[in-house]
Amino acid sequence: MKIFPFFALVLAGALVASALRAAPLGAPTAAPVHGQKAAPAIDRVDPTFWWVGMKNPHLQLLVHGPGIGASLASLRYAGVALDGIQKLENPNYLVVNLTIAPDAKPGQLTLLFLDGKKKTTRAYELRARNQDPARTQGLTQADFIYMLMPDRFANGDPKNDVVRGTRVNHVARDSMYARHGGDLKGIENHFSYLKQLGATAIWPTPIVENDMPKASYHGYAVTDCYKVDPRYGTNAEYVQFVKNAHKQGLKVVQDIVLNHWGSYHHLFRDQPAADWFHAFPTFTRSNYNAFVLNDPYGAKIDRKLENDGWFDTTMPDVNQSNPLVATYLIQNFLWWVESTGLDGYRIDTYPYSEPQFLMAWGKAIADEYPKLALFGEAWEGTEAEQAFFAQNILPPVNGFKSNLPGVLDFQICFGIGDVLKGDGGDLTKLYRALQGDWMYTDATRNVPFLDNHDMSRFYSVIGEDFAKYKMGLAWLLTLRGTPQLYYGTEVLMKNFSDPDGKVREDFPGGWASDKTNYFAARPGPAGEAFDYVAKLANYRKSHPVLSSGKLMQFIPQDGVYTYFRYTDAGECVMVIANNTKDAKQVDGRRFAERTAGFASGQDVVTGAPVPDLQTIAVPARTVMVVELKK
Amino acid sequence: MKIFPFFALVLAGALVASALRAAPLGAPTAAPVHGQKAAPAIDRVDPTFWWVGMKNPHLQLLVHGPGIGASLASLRYAGVALDGIQKLENPNYLVVNLTIAPDAKPGQLTLLFLDGKKKTTRAYELRARNQDPARTQGLTQADFIYMLMPDRFANGDPKNDVVRGTRVNHVARDSMYARHGGDLKGIENHFSYLKQLGATAIWPTPIVENDMPKASYHGYAVTDCYKVDPRYGTNAEYVQFVKNAHKQGLKVVQDIVLNHWGSYHHLFRDQPAADWFHAFPTFTRSNYNAFVLNDPYGAKIDRKLENDGWFDTTMPDVNQSNPLVATYLIQNFLWWVESTGLDGYRIDTYPYSEPQFLMAWGKAIADEYPKLALFGEAWEGTEAEQAFFAQNILPPVNGFKSNLPGVLDFQICFGIGDVLKGDGGDLTKLYRALQGDWMYTDATRNVPFLDNHDMSRFYSVIGEDFAKYKMGLAWLLTLRGTPQLYYGTEVLMKNFSDPDGKVREDFPGGWASDKTNYFAARPGPAGEAFDYVAKLANYRKSHPVLSSGKLMQFIPQDGVYTYFRYTDAGECVMVIANNTKDAKQVDGRRFAERTAGFASGQDVVTGAPVPDLQTIAVPARTVMVVELKK
Repeated sequence: MKIFPFFALVLAGALVASALRAAPLGAPTAAPVHGQKAAPAIDRVDPTFWWVGMKNPHLQLLVHGPGIGASLASLRYAGVALDGIQKLENPNYLVVNLTIAPDAKPGQLTLLFLDGKKKTTRAYELRARNQDPARTQGLTQADFIYMLMPDRFANGDPKNDVVRGTRVNHVARDSMYARHGGDLKGIENHFSYLKQLGATAIWPTPIVENDMPKASYHGYAVTDCYKVDPRYGTNAEYVQFVKNAHKQGLKVVQDIVLNHWGSYHHLFRDQPAADWFHAFPTFTRSNYNAFVLNDPYGAKIDRKLENDGWFDTTMPDVNQSNPLVATYLIQNFLWWVESTGLDGYRIDTYPYSEPQFLMAWGKAIADEYPKLALFGEAWEGTEAEQAFFAQNILPPVNGFKSNLPGVLDFQICFGIGDVLKGDGGDLTKLYRALQGDWMYTDATRNVPFLDNHDMSRFYSVIGEDFAKYKMGLAWLLTLRGTPQLYYGTEVLMKNFSDPDGKVREDFPGGWASDKTNYFAARPGPAGEAFDYVAKLANYRKSHPVLSSGKLMQFIPQDGVYTYFRYTDAGECVMVIANNTKDAKQVDGRRFAERTAGFASGQDVVTGAPVPDLQTIAVPARTVMVVELKK
Repeated sequence: MKIFPFFALVLAGALVASALRAAPLGAPTAAPVHGQKAAPAIDRVDPTFWWVGMKNPHLQLLVHGPGIGASLASLRYAGVALDGIQKLENPNYLVVNLTIAPDAKPGQLTLLFLDGKKKTTRAYELRARNQDPARTQGLTQADFIYMLMPDRFANGDPKNDVVRGTRVNHVARDSMYARHGGDLKGIENHFSYLKQLGATAIWPTPIVENDMPKASYHGYAVTDCYKVDPRYGTNAEYVQFVKNAHKQGLKVVQDIVLNHWGSYHHLFRDQPAADWFHAFPTFTRSNYNAFVLNDPYGAKIDRKLENDGWFDTTMPDVNQSNPLVATYLIQNFLWWVESTGLDGYRIDTYPYSEPQFLMAWGKAIADEYPKLALFGEAWEGTEAEQAFFAQNILPPVNGFKSNLPGVLDFQICFGIGDVLKGDGGDLTKLYRALQGDWMYTDATRNVPFLDNHDMSRFYSVIGEDFAKYKMGLAWLLTLRGTPQLYYGTEVLMKNFSDPDGKVREDFPGGWASDKTNYFAARPGPAGEAFDYVAKLANYRKSHPVLSSGKLMQFIPQDGVYTYFRYTDAGECVMVIANNTKDAKQVDGRRFAERTAGFASGQDVVTGAPVPDLQTIAVPARTVMVVELKK
């Protein structure tokens, strides 16, 4: 790749070099004979296929086969040049660097490997790029992301619950750490449910293979970067999944991990070289303190532990400062976009990857797919620490300047949670979560949320108080950014993350045997909750003032917090919160900057008129979303 | 002043304009006759005197006298030009703008005011600048600031306890809100005490006149910007105070208020114009939410209230966007430096002043006195909000980019307080208070502290636990920046700010009648505390590694937090904290980055050897300050 020159390039002889120059002309290449051995068998080439016409014409193949490292390579394909090969410590690997001319024709090229007199060939496919304009739409603030765990949402294909050859031979729905059988087909079966809710995008936790012996249903212990987990479906089914989603007006966000793989990853079990992973004399965890990265007084050892320490015992930390590894990761995530047409990446454990790699990765991905949405998980404690990991107005610190467009907005999550705890928390927590936006290049690319698979569920956090529930949802769906909902929050699923992880329970109705089926019918509070979310989400979707309007907020006073979304064209929505246990008559004259020119309003959820903008009646524990009228 | 052109300049006639041009040549000036009135009497000119040879040659005089506004002005003094006059709404004021050539001679010039045929003259003194190199030394990290309230520290001159003509006719030492009689002489009497403690600088709360009817002993309700409060001493005594302090190796920081004055200020009682103060239909407080200034979504009304709302009922908010007011304030604070040779300003309520004014004020002061120390009170909740008010690496926000070199480090104060509360708080609070330094241009100009006159006293905050006391002091005196101690903390003075304000009690021994005199003798815990502070403060003073050394900190682990101060020349001090109730054997190998090359250490306070840097024994609830040895 352009960004990572081929370090320590090993060329076996001058003949290869001259062969490279000849290749674009289509001349066949011969390689020197070194000795007599068995012909090498090739069992894998990554990326598994590629395309002609990518902006970056370079391609680096990682070829795996017993003893393949002793071979020389050659090829003959019009428009494709072999730039060189590189041996690795492990003789079972060979790196092959290609350049693909823009005018090369899609087709199958043949890689020829020569070890002495032994010859092996390997076909490699170069595809035409898919020009469908429906692919890779990116996300805007008009989107509403539904986040789910595919193993736990719905089981559309019971035949793939247990897949022969994988390391888990059973499903066990009564265990939080076992596989339950959910899959892509299950999600697809409920596209209409998601649409009814007002969602416009789906973010499943990682769908790539996690062939670990246990507890990998979450997807964050990747074992094959190029393969959909067979319990969820095939690669072809995933491609179709994205296509079908697009047809239904739903976008797809792929959840990815750059920082680590699962310990059963084929590249960890047969490591190309010792420097592909961060190794320590004994198992060493990350210190999980990402703030050390912009500590001007930080110790090297602490920075190293943060970046290089393992995320968990079963998750080896990938050495991204190895340019081969970096290229492997960059190509992998170009490959998924081009293969599927997905719309965005959610990047797990963003601050744990190496800073220089993150910059290179982000640039390479954005150069190729400028429309692709990119947002990361930076679970940090303060606005400044969070902003450090997104595009911001700050100069580089310790050589790092993030090029990540947005982050999951933990400050808003913490703010709403704190505000709604107990008898009415400090509303400035939420005000200040937004005030912190001054440090971002564009905070509208952040993703606000109330909870996720790693946190206690929102409904439990707020003490199962439905009034507070509506408050949180009203804020989530009227704030700047692209909101994200965690599956089940719309039907009041609950539980705390500690001690039993029961925040990842199955969605009721996702399994044929379920007695409760919330896809089909939602009696009682679950239905009330769903309808509330759907009402606001669909209002947001159809009213650009909420998705692209400006924001003005007023400092919270006496338990009342008010902000406005507005456009220069004269639309205005007032979001006024009373976080106390008593009804309030709020003096609206303070909001004259935004209410001037409007005579009254209408509650977006209830349809009730709001006749007086000078004195606004707000019930106890209520966020009113009010469309202003001239 | 250069920065503030004379807005709305009113020239009474062409003759005046020509007179101005003639003035530098020394020609006498005649003014036109308008009518027959009594000659105006001038009772005040601000600044009260000035100097030749200031970098900024402009001087704006605010002349007060009944009906003076109807006059024209002229003068005749070689090298001094009358640039123009300006009438104000109030006929009792006239603004006179002068330019003083660098080669003008010091002396007394005569201002001539003509109202019709009536003539008034007023002498105005132009002094020579004082070239004493001991003046205005500024502060460095080698300094240690002792903050005190002059009314409450020591009564050196009982004759000035009650001053005839002031609005308070008594002292009452049993009332927290009355005057107690302390004064400059009282401080001066105890210079040797301060030196013994290791202090190198004195910061009294404001010493300027606060002639309010009650509760103005604190000094933040200024009534005359050019006069020392007579209960503390005369202007001449203050000049001598600074001089004597310098002789004793003590610097002087003047505490100043830019944002507001007392309601008995002569310029508020007889206001030059309505636009000299921020007025509201009814009394309106500041919202005290400075974070609105860098809220990208902030409402104008909230910003206006923050800046323009009154700090308190008796503290009118000065309109700094009026260029005349801005110039008045700038000149006033040039005047105090040049009059006295003081070393630094501590700026009260910094974020409440208008942002554009703060930038202009800071530039004007620093242009004239580049060595002067400047630090402000920015009592903000987060590192980023605090850094916003000091020189920082951020681009301007809402047109504001602070030029203030340093701020009082509330984040460190909060961090140490939180860490030491209860059974051992989260040490990362302190770590992160320092980590936030990445946003500053130079955080070593910040002023760490443990408490002040507005907060509960440190010893009470930590539950009067002497082990914790020593921990806090050890951090304070080994951190980066210029530490500040609040008077009495060195002898374990205590109390909470709520509800009775008893954090401003008299220093025991400051009054002749005091039964306890801690200046003379400090038996028991008070003496132990004093000796501990003195030991560390004097070590800091004599060991540049603590004042100018670099800082490296290690992420807190298992209740242990360690940082190092070190120089490239090979000095190194380890500050290792055990914040748990059990003694620890700390694995020192983690600190190899800093301990490499050192064999052992010595406890700076106890002198005890620290024989092993591989396994460091740290008692429970202890911060050890260890000088490393080769």
